[in-house]
Amino acid sequence: MPAKQKTLEDLFLTTLKDVYYAEKQILRALPKMAKATESDELRQAFEQHRTETDGQIQRLEQVFEQIGKRASGKTCEAIQGIIAEGQEIMEEYAESDALDAGILASAQAIEHYEISRYGTLKSWAQQLGMTEAVTLIEETLAEEKKTDQLLTQIAESNANQKAAA
Amino acid sequence: MPAKQKTLEDLFLTTLKDVYYAEKQILRALPKMAKATESDELRQAFEQHRTETDGQIQRLEQVFEQIGKRASGKTCEAIQGIIAEGQEIMEEYAESDALDAGILASAQAIEHYEISRYGTLKSWAQQLGMTEAVTLIEETLAEEKKTDQLLTQIAESNANQKAAA
Repeated sequence: MPAKQKTLEDLFLTTLKDVYYAEKQILRALPKMAKATESDELRQAFEQHRTETDGQIQRLEQVFEQIGKRASGKTCEAIQGIIAEGQEIMEEYAESDALDAGILASAQAIEHYEISRYGTLKSWAQQLGMTEAVTLIEETLAEEKKTDQLLTQIAESNANQKAAA
Repeated sequence: MPAKQKTLEDLFLTTLKDVYYAEKQILRALPKMAKATESDELRQAFEQHRTETDGQIQRLEQVFEQIGKRASGKTCEAIQGIIAEGQEIMEEYAESDALDAGILASAQAIEHYEISRYGTLKSWAQQLGMTEAVTLIEETLAEEKKTDQLLTQIAESNANQKAAA
């Protein structure tokens, strides 16, 4: 007997769980990144993004509620890999002037993963007519894009110049 | 005795190896994605991007040459995770109308990882005064962004509507 045909709703739920897991991992990674950096500007950016991430997790919980599912995560190998690479850079460059450049690069890889996932979720939520979910996802997507832009700005004005000095 | 202080040049080389490894993994993943999709438009997009990826690998080899290093990859856990998740979706949704939506989401996660990495490499190459490398990286970055836009367009016009039908 074939398994029940999987639908876009299933895919939406799977990806929602993937992002929920990813956000919780990011919530744990951000304080380590804030602690590792020597730049006040970057530390503040990470601390601010940690607060935003708390809000983003709550928005995901609202979306779970809207579709009548319990909020739960699904192991996301992608974010595990991205965070593990960042951790490695933080260890290897701990004593280096290039440390902040490395931390920034990891943070931007995290942001781009999230931008991709929320872009996908937004598109599917639109297709599925989930108006309220679209609004919540758009709010988070705007925050992620803004964070990525802020990191680019800090990277270009600060860490790289220091590292190349 | 402390290890030699690591520099932005070291970080650039490490990240170059990371992306070189990632591109080779992507080169192997794209034909599987092209084979899995039922959409001619998507298959053509993957086939075209495979040709582009070949060229992107050659550009990376030129950058290795410019800095006097042998082209070699460094295992990139991030891209491994992203591709593994995509593979899982392709298997789980093999018989589903939502298959193309899932493949597209994976492809966009891949593109965003690359956009992040090439954005970082470009910024560092600029700081390091590597003018020729900047040009090569910019060419690839433009291709990746264009591919991501094309995938968004296909996703919105095609796969999602089919999946929600």
